[in-house]
Parts: sequence; C-alpha cells; structure tokens
Amino acid sequence: MPEFIEISSKDNPLIKFVRLLQSSAKHRKEHNLFVLEGLRICDDVYQNNIRFDKLIVTKSAAKKHYEDINRFATVSQSCFILSDDLFKKISDTSSPQGIIAVAKIPEINGNISSSGRYIALENLADPSNLGAIARTAEALGVSGIILSADSCDPYAPKSLRSSMGTLLRVPVYIVDDIVEFINKNNLRAFACVVDKDASSITTQEFRDGDVLLIGNEANGLSSDAKQAAYCNITIKMQGKAESLNAAAAAAIAMWEMVKER
Amino acid sequence: MPEFIEISSKDNPLIKFVRLLQSSAKHRKEHNLFVLEGLRICDDVYQNNIRFDKLIVTKSAAKKHYEDINRFATVSQSCFILSDDLFKKISDTSSPQGIIAVAKIPEINGNISSSGRYIALENLADPSNLGAIARTAEALGVSGIILSADSCDPYAPKSLRSSMGTLLRVPVYIVDDIVEFINKNNLRAFACVVDKDASSITTQEFRDGDVLLIGNEANGLSSDAKQAAYCNITIKMQGKAESLNAAAAAAIAMWEMVKER
Repeated sequence: MPEFIEISSKDNPLIKFVRLLQSSAKHRKEHNLFVLEGLRICDDVYQNNIRFDKLIVTKSAAKKHYEDINRFATVSQSCFILSDDLFKKISDTSSPQGIIAVAKIPEINGNISSSGRYIALENLADPSNLGAIARTAEALGVSGIILSADSCDPYAPKSLRSSMGTLLRVPVYIVDDIVEFINKNNLRAFACVVDKDASSITTQEFRDGDVLLIGNEANGLSSDAKQAAYCNITIKMQGKAESLNAAAAAAIAMWEMVKER
Repeated sequence: MPEFIEISSKDNPLIKFVRLLQSSAKHRKEHNLFVLEGLRICDDVYQNNIRFDKLIVTKSAAKKHYEDINRFATVSQSCFILSDDLFKKISDTSSPQGIIAVAKIPEINGNISSSGRYIALENLADPSNLGAIARTAEALGVSGIILSADSCDPYAPKSLRSSMGTLLRVPVYIVDDIVEFINKNNLRAFACVVDKDASSITTQEFRDGDVLLIGNEANGLSSDAKQAAYCNITIKMQGKAESLNAAAAAAIAMWEMVKER
C-alpha cells in the first residue's frame, strides 16, 4: 500500500489538476482520467476492478472510513491526505464526504452485438438525464448506450452521480455520427419523436438488434436521424403536455423494447 | 394596468420577502404564496388563468419581453421594476431571465374520482423527481398526484422548474396520512417495491380507481404503506442495479397503469 502524502497548500498542483478534471470534459479527455467522488461510487468502481490513479482523502474521512479507505489505497498508485478546507477546493458537492479517486477512463468491452438491444442518445445535453437513462438501461437489461460525441460527458461528476455508478458498468459507445454507426452495425433504429402521426410505441414488435433513438431535450432528434430510422415511433400523450422529460421517455421506450424478451 | 414601482435598494422589504418565498416551504405555506420565475412558466400560469399577486421584472427584461410583460402586468395586483444586479438577489437560477411573479398557491379543483387513476408519493425527497413525475403524469393522463405532507414541496422553485409548470395543472393532493386517504377514497393501491418476490407489474390488470404507491428515493415505501396495499408489485430488474430512479420507476409504472385505458 502506498504511503499517504500530505498536501497542505492550496497551490499544490494536484489541487488545480483535480479541479480541472472535475469541471472540464476537455481536460478529462486530454488526460484520459476522471474523478470519482464519495464512498459509494469509489466502492462501486473498486468492485468493478477498476484501479485508481490517485486516492485523495481528508483527515476526518481517513478516521471515519478507515477500513474502506485502506482497501481503496491498496489499489491506488498514489495516495494523498489533506484538510477538510482544502478538500472543498476539489469537491464537486456541497457537503463532501472527503473521498476522491482519480481513475483512467475505462475502455469499452466488446462490440455491438446483433443479439443486443440498445439505446442511442443524440446530442443529449443534461448529465442528470444521461445518468438516469444509464441507471434505467442497466436495470432493464439494455445492452448498451450509443452516445453522440456532442452529448454531455458520461464522466462528468453529475452524470456519474445521477447514474449511481451504472455509467461505469453499462457499455457507452461514444460516436461522432450516430446514423453511420447504427447503419454500420446493422441495427434497426426506432426514432422516438413527439408527433401525433407517428406510430404508437405500443404497436411495435421489437426484436434483438433494435436500437431506440432519443434526441436533445429541447430540440428532439435531428432530421437526419429521423429519416435514417426504420420507423418513427411515439408515446401517445394527453393534456397540455408538450413532451415527456427525456429520461422518462427513455424509461418507457426501453421498457417497451425489452419487456417481451 | 398597475404602474411599475421602482425598487432601488437591496433593503427593500420585498427583496427579503421574495427570497424567503424562494427558499422556504414554511414561508410559502404561511403566506399561501409561491414564486414563478422565467417567461415560460409565468406564461403557462397566465394561460391557466392564475392571477399574479406581484410581478417583478428587470429593466432589461422589460425591454426585451415588452409585450409578454405588459400582458402579465394586466393580471398583476402590483408591479415592480429593478436593476439586473438587484434581481440576482431574488432569483433562484444562475442566469436569470429577469421575470418573477408571485402568485397564490392554487386550491385543488375537485375530489378524488372513482373513475380516475392516481399516483401516490410517500416521503418523496427530491424536487426534481417530483417535477419529472408530474410531467409524466400529465402526459400519460394520470388523474392526480397524492403527495404525503413530509415530501418535498411542489411549490419549490426546483419542483416547478423540472415539472415545466405541470405541477400547477395536475391536481396535487397533499395529505398527512397517505394510507388513510387512500382507504377513505376507496382506491385500490399497488405498492411499487424492490423485491424479487413481489408480483411483476406486467401481470397486473389495472382498472379505474387504482393508485400506484411510490416511496422515498433511499428507503422506499414505509411498511405501513406496503401492508395496507392491495398488492405489492415490482419492475423486474437485471444486472447489478439496486433500484430504478424514482422518476423512472414512476414513469414505467404509470405507463403500465394507464396504457390499456
């Protein structure tokens, strides 16, 4: 187990480095690293056999979570300890638990399978929606998430938090061109649209090799995606509702896609 | 149309009053008032014939949204105008649009109907979940939301925002004792639980007069609620998922409850 190195200055370069990893998707991509904050998500990742580049804890957390932190330390390349005040500078939460790990962005295991069922998200903007969709996808047994590169970052603190760690377990394929990727992998795409004239999702017969397309929260799917789809489908709505929340629409659509399996 | 009164001091009592209405559920209840922020939600409420106690706008918004603000002013008891800087003190958002209305908390129209289908939320903690559930409930034609009094406040800024205004349209029955209320209204309750041995939601035959029970995000339903229910049902899960997000579970459950209608 590496020794814990004490950080006592706010000018320590590690402080700035972790802050940037927390706040900037560009920085995460550049270094191929991301930040895990909190006992639960660190433990999730530990259980998934992902190892830590750095472990950073407060003195009070080191006392309170002695056993967990020692466990994490054995799989960390380097360990750091600092004061509660200094930790606040690198924390993304309002009441920090005092545990942060920095880990390598995992590589995706395996390719798209013709026996899988997928969800594809085009230009999804809200990390909370991405997190919630990943959580539902895992719970319902969806095989993976295809995410357009212009969507929010799955390794952003907010995405990870609202996914309860599932974004590190469900395969996430980040692709420049969703339509091209879907065609190349011979998936049959169902574009989820807000359109009274589209087919009801209840009348579809889903099968393996299908993928649902969900678009941007404000603007929906691009016309390219809608045109390239095998079928445009909709969740029939009532009342004055203009659309469902993207995560709620995705939950209902995934439920319909996988429930007959 | 009332004249716009200029507020130029941060010590103006209205500033403190609106801040408290934004931040405190107790304060909202005490005054029976709540805050609407932003053009869209003010317009939603205007369209629903709710009238405004106060309209508070910035000078720049008054220029930019001249027509909308004049329209709102005609249904406001008093109108105020202030600087962008002062507005920030009463805004709940990071990039304020410069429009706030204060309105009376609406009374609920009508009672529980035996031909309705409802969702009941016990001790729901997260206003974003409440907002998302209200949005889905309206879209799917659920008749109303029964909300335990220890849940988060539907008139909190975050609830209203994530509901896209639907919390002001879907009837919300706030009750001290959910079980008593359900029994008194002769509703048939389906408790949504995370329990492999509970009946699958797919095997239920829902009918009018049914209500779904959804519990707290961390702790689920109380044992009282589970015992009082006609049936405990579950959404079968796969993988390592421990539970669905409350709003996703509610979306799937409401979808199943209403889709055969």
